[in-house]
Amino acid sequence: MTDSTPSTSRPRILSGMRPTGKLHLGNYMGALYNWVKLQHEYECYFFIADYHALTTDYANTANLRENIREVMLDFLAAGLDPAVSTLFIQSDVKAHFELNSLFSMITPLSWLERVPTYKDQQEQLKEKDLATYGFLGYPLLQSADILLYKPRYVPVGADQVAHVELTREVARRFNQFFPGDFYLSPGAAPWEMGAIQEKARKLADDKTKSTFSAHELYEAAHQTRKITGFGRHEVLPEPDVFLTPSPKLPGTDGRKMSKSYRNTILLSDPETEVRAKLKTMVTDPARIRREDRGNPDVCPVFDLHRVFSTEQTQQNARVGCTTAGIGCIECKNWLADAVVEHLAPIQERRRYYESNFVEVEEILAQGAVRAATRANQTMQEVRDAVGLR
Amino acid sequence: MTDSTPSTSRPRILSGMRPTGKLHLGNYMGALYNWVKLQHEYECYFFIADYHALTTDYANTANLRENIREVMLDFLAAGLDPAVSTLFIQSDVKAHFELNSLFSMITPLSWLERVPTYKDQQEQLKEKDLATYGFLGYPLLQSADILLYKPRYVPVGADQVAHVELTREVARRFNQFFPGDFYLSPGAAPWEMGAIQEKARKLADDKTKSTFSAHELYEAAHQTRKITGFGRHEVLPEPDVFLTPSPKLPGTDGRKMSKSYRNTILLSDPETEVRAKLKTMVTDPARIRREDRGNPDVCPVFDLHRVFSTEQTQQNARVGCTTAGIGCIECKNWLADAVVEHLAPIQERRRYYESNFVEVEEILAQGAVRAATRANQTMQEVRDAVGLR
Repeated sequence: MTDSTPSTSRPRILSGMRPTGKLHLGNYMGALYNWVKLQHEYECYFFIADYHALTTDYANTANLRENIREVMLDFLAAGLDPAVSTLFIQSDVKAHFELNSLFSMITPLSWLERVPTYKDQQEQLKEKDLATYGFLGYPLLQSADILLYKPRYVPVGADQVAHVELTREVARRFNQFFPGDFYLSPGAAPWEMGAIQEKARKLADDKTKSTFSAHELYEAAHQTRKITGFGRHEVLPEPDVFLTPSPKLPGTDGRKMSKSYRNTILLSDPETEVRAKLKTMVTDPARIRREDRGNPDVCPVFDLHRVFSTEQTQQNARVGCTTAGIGCIECKNWLADAVVEHLAPIQERRRYYESNFVEVEEILAQGAVRAATRANQTMQEVRDAVGLR
Repeated sequence: MTDSTPSTSRPRILSGMRPTGKLHLGNYMGALYNWVKLQHEYECYFFIADYHALTTDYANTANLRENIREVMLDFLAAGLDPAVSTLFIQSDVKAHFELNSLFSMITPLSWLERVPTYKDQQEQLKEKDLATYGFLGYPLLQSADILLYKPRYVPVGADQVAHVELTREVARRFNQFFPGDFYLSPGAAPWEMGAIQEKARKLADDKTKSTFSAHELYEAAHQTRKITGFGRHEVLPEPDVFLTPSPKLPGTDGRKMSKSYRNTILLSDPETEVRAKLKTMVTDPARIRREDRGNPDVCPVFDLHRVFSTEQTQQNARVGCTTAGIGCIECKNWLADAVVEHLAPIQERRRYYESNFVEVEEILAQGAVRAATRANQTMQEVRDAVGLR
């Protein structure tokens, strides 16, 4: 059962990102690039997950404010349009924390302990003390982040699918403990109505009874197995995963582009920086001399060509590389041209918002109001279903 | 370091109670009675912990709204005065959940696993599934409940001391990760100031320097070991336990008065009900016949005399019992007189508020505003210290 009062007819989606500071091409192609394309087809909520940054980095928050600022600038630079998408900061919408606290009450510890990323990340981030209550619970905070907005879809990469699955389980458990109001689908056929009332009369053991409570009708419909169109509203509909493309995007050292590897090209890197970084990028290790023939299919530079260059340039690079017709320097120059061209409008927007930061603040303030309005509506339904005041 | 802008010069205290429905004499003597006496000496915040009710009773919330209503009526009936005390419902102040979510990030799982009540209650409430994330974390929600108001004291019974101790640990950990602003105590002696500035000059390696940042002065003060009066504000001062008297208060079956034993006398029980319940109360089991001499020191009825009867009545009951001068029925009648007399003004106030419930709603609305104002002030300091926006 989807929300009965959608504020638009487009299906709703929601996604968020931790404030890690200036975003790189990997963040962009893995999320932002997709979001920008989705925003005209869907009703979109995109947020900066500042509390999630604390799950792993609570011991060092010196750059948190600055990081939030940079991510927001990159959101807008990448082309997220505040006129059609709701952009906000998680901690500006207090309902996230209330729903998180409420979900904690109904969620078995074991569900959280078995989330695959829990042990994985503790292993990977050994230098940090992640044996905290909040680190165990962060997929639950994510569930609250999501379900507050009742999205139809959650666009995520493959690594986040388990978290959306947990979100669905939490929604199911909530709906099971706290069912919503009874409803009669407007699509129920008149003959169904008659059969239901007949059953209700029998259940009441009163042949003359003609008015029934919603609960009596529901019971009757339930017992008249064949009857459809009756049920109880699910307060928190389960969202579906929307698996977004996440192309292979190596950093300058050939490993996955990641801030922790210091191999990134930033969305905000100036042209000279982009060109300098790409110049040092590793290539097919077997192509040692200029006259050696290369293999684009094992070359990290070619992986980036696939993402950023035109078909024609890719074709030229492939031929040039496999015939030793061009050197790696030339191939990298072509790539740099493509990347710089792709980044130009992004950086232009960034410069605009950097010098008009008051507009960014305004966008965030409006986003917070829009998001809070939606979230508070859900929270009211949640509180009603739970039986809170 | 206590809060620098107290809204009153009285030390602040805070305590809360779960909404278990109509309160009984045990709830009253263990908490409310003490609170009523404290409210003129302290700046008091008392709240109904509706989310805590969910930690153990998430599977059955049908009576939650009604229970909250009854507890609030009993708060007012017992004599909590909304003109001097701030009375509110936990879930009306959203900051509780934000601080709870924030604390979760810095709190080791092991701290919560070792809280004595954690395993105890799971043992005692075997019929409920308490292997939830929220049940493990409820002492942390309590820490947030408390620290939001920066109370000087937390009046609790002995069973809650471990929770206040955890609250102190959480405050210490928060203050360690997120120290507040630098300060110079107004009490610092002038000679201290001179010595600190001299040290700051040396540290800056500039003999002519005469103005220093707060941080420079702090560093200098820190290195000039003997200097006092310098430091950093603790954002969340550690509250102290205020151990309130909790007299032995048996129920009608002689066991501790408790809702789950169905042996309670309610604050709102009418006189006939009080007398009927006390009539069935167990007494010294060795006093079988009227002419047997009894021992008040093993008699549950006498435990209640100690709490509710005058010295004179206690004396008469003791003599009458030990000499077989009175029967248990007479002794119970004297007790019933005392209890009924004690309850009379309480029930009068309850009747008033029951028939003027709109006033109660008004009191709760005002309480929510007052509590939220205080809580949001703390939350702003907390967010500043953490480096959130």
